[in-house]
Amino acid sequence: MLAVHTPPPAQRLAGVASSPVRDLLALIDRPEVISFAGGLPAPELFDLDGLRAAFDRVLAAGDGRRHLQYAPTEGNPDLRALVAARMTARGLPTGAGDLLVTTGSQQGLTLIAAALLDPGAVVAVEEPTYLAALQCFQLAGCRVVPVPAGGLERVLREHRPKLLYLVPNFANPTGRTLSREQRAEIAELTAAHGVWVVEDDPYGELRYRGEPVPALAAQPGAEHVLHLGSFSKIAAPGLRLGWVRTPAALRPALTVAKQAADLHTSTIDQAAAADWLAHTDLDAHIKNLIDAYAERRNAMMAAMPGAAPAGSTWTDPDGGMFTWLRLPGPADTAALLPAALAVDVAFVPGAPFYAGRADPATMRLSFTTHTPGEITEGMRRLAPVLRTPAA
Amino acid sequence: MLAVHTPPPAQRLAGVASSPVRDLLALIDRPEVISFAGGLPAPELFDLDGLRAAFDRVLAAGDGRRHLQYAPTEGNPDLRALVAARMTARGLPTGAGDLLVTTGSQQGLTLIAAALLDPGAVVAVEEPTYLAALQCFQLAGCRVVPVPAGGLERVLREHRPKLLYLVPNFANPTGRTLSREQRAEIAELTAAHGVWVVEDDPYGELRYRGEPVPALAAQPGAEHVLHLGSFSKIAAPGLRLGWVRTPAALRPALTVAKQAADLHTSTIDQAAAADWLAHTDLDAHIKNLIDAYAERRNAMMAAMPGAAPAGSTWTDPDGGMFTWLRLPGPADTAALLPAALAVDVAFVPGAPFYAGRADPATMRLSFTTHTPGEITEGMRRLAPVLRTPAA
Repeated sequence: MLAVHTPPPAQRLAGVASSPVRDLLALIDRPEVISFAGGLPAPELFDLDGLRAAFDRVLAAGDGRRHLQYAPTEGNPDLRALVAARMTARGLPTGAGDLLVTTGSQQGLTLIAAALLDPGAVVAVEEPTYLAALQCFQLAGCRVVPVPAGGLERVLREHRPKLLYLVPNFANPTGRTLSREQRAEIAELTAAHGVWVVEDDPYGELRYRGEPVPALAAQPGAEHVLHLGSFSKIAAPGLRLGWVRTPAALRPALTVAKQAADLHTSTIDQAAAADWLAHTDLDAHIKNLIDAYAERRNAMMAAMPGAAPAGSTWTDPDGGMFTWLRLPGPADTAALLPAALAVDVAFVPGAPFYAGRADPATMRLSFTTHTPGEITEGMRRLAPVLRTPAA
Repeated sequence: MLAVHTPPPAQRLAGVASSPVRDLLALIDRPEVISFAGGLPAPELFDLDGLRAAFDRVLAAGDGRRHLQYAPTEGNPDLRALVAARMTARGLPTGAGDLLVTTGSQQGLTLIAAALLDPGAVVAVEEPTYLAALQCFQLAGCRVVPVPAGGLERVLREHRPKLLYLVPNFANPTGRTLSREQRAEIAELTAAHGVWVVEDDPYGELRYRGEPVPALAAQPGAEHVLHLGSFSKIAAPGLRLGWVRTPAALRPALTVAKQAADLHTSTIDQAAAADWLAHTDLDAHIKNLIDAYAERRNAMMAAMPGAAPAGSTWTDPDGGMFTWLRLPGPADTAALLPAALAVDVAFVPGAPFYAGRADPATMRLSFTTHTPGEITEGMRRLAPVLRTPAA
């Protein structure tokens, strides 16, 4: 029985910033803007015809009416089996029964917070980390503690977090990937301290070079790791389809939380996704994405030395959607955004991605939304903006 | 700063029963079972062809790729405008901007709990009431207080609830409808005591006799009323589409909560629903539903006197999906369920719908899933079961 000092929800909500991604999404409708802001997949790479055919097949006479009805909370059995088979083939042995289908992997985070985190609970996160995860934990009334490089053991010992949140592959916002050795150490330390781990992996299939690193959930003795996956980056985010691979001990609690959240995820979208998976060469589709995104990544990396002022540093991601740029000196990227928008280029200032003290000289640049030519042009326009002296 | 005594989430979740609807849903796949259990719309009345055509149109070249992309948290603007226009035409003046699209109206409840209710907050409810609403409030760590008939003022005064939850039209589970006078009194009392009201209205369009009663949210000075609507009963529950009509003061908090919950509801399903509404004579579609369901309601009411033992009471609903039966004497309907299932009939025992002391002699019967002939047969089979003497 703890005396928990938690502000009332309305106050908590007021303290949670709205997502810059959301605020900048409006810009996407202005075709003249080259946006490095949102983590948006390239719409021209969606398998529109394939998905359209899948929706048409599942809504045909026969099973069509079943796909318009209420459905089990855990998710469509065919979809769970297909996803589990793919995860298993990619090195993370998974049964259909281990998976809970969620309305996007964002919902997975909220369900985990509902099932595991009381107001006042401590959540440890990489620094910087995915903004909407920070929001979700703040909304649950948690105290979020950043883990500095090499500081995990100290944070576990001093702050006794209930949960550690990570994006191990091509992280949002930094593009960084945890090495095999780092993963082994994280799995071991968190197991030893009895800390749950959330491994958020929306980008893992989008690797442009190097060899895949086994998932944290695939480490020996990783029964304390929840693994989140998503169709948003490999199929289409508009489907809002994700999944949690959950340890057996948490399955009942997560299922009850899911039922309270929305009863179940769209029956139609789940059926269409299962049908699409069954009719699609997903490896070939993902190879298409990788080929296109690798070129875009390369275009941004090639433009970076000319765009970023001397003394800048940036990450050189092996996959995913983002690079993380730090300007030299006392720069404030938020102050530069209006000038960027004035030349029709958007990015996300880095400060909101920090749980602790923000580094205002940082910014996140996404390279997936535009073609290599547009990226080159956008970086050309950005160059003088990034060289504006701090006020 | 209150010392809040709240059990940790895992413990709270363990205390929240799984929904009987969910548990009994498995029975639907056994075609020999006549189920009065689930609140399932009749699948043969879904506009399968119309919805299939709508999905096909929105996924055609042109805007198709946009409907596979991330989208604004508040929802599809066309869908919001169409729903708002219909609500306005039905007597509840609503602008598109007043609506937040949700992943089923179940999500609306969870978002309201996130935005308004701290652990330990008091929620007042009709007794008995919608089971999944009880679960949602219990999951949020709230104390749920039942309102006895005529006892609202006393509950407001003595328990100082933060929120009152109601299903004013053809309630789940009782089928009861609040009169115009009751609504005026509720709106006035709650306004005077500064209590938020959640008016959950999934069944309002399914009225089989009598005149519509104005919504609580349409009462004068009802800025404290949140109104929940849904496509589940008038279109198809598999779409998982609902909406909250929200007072301006709560819009920012609910939007942030929605963003944390799942970023936004399925872009495709929203676009297809908007397209379907634009291409469908919804009045004619709902008239079809009403004609069919009215016959089913009448079949159940006609069979009731022969099926229920002497001394039973039941509600005679003007609309919706449910009647509420109370057996005489010390009956326990949960104990009768196995005998009902043995003759391939299902119902939901009444006890889980109570926030306070349950009346175990009650049960909920849904009349929408089966044809009049099947209902007559199901009630014939149920008659000897309901006459089983209590152990």
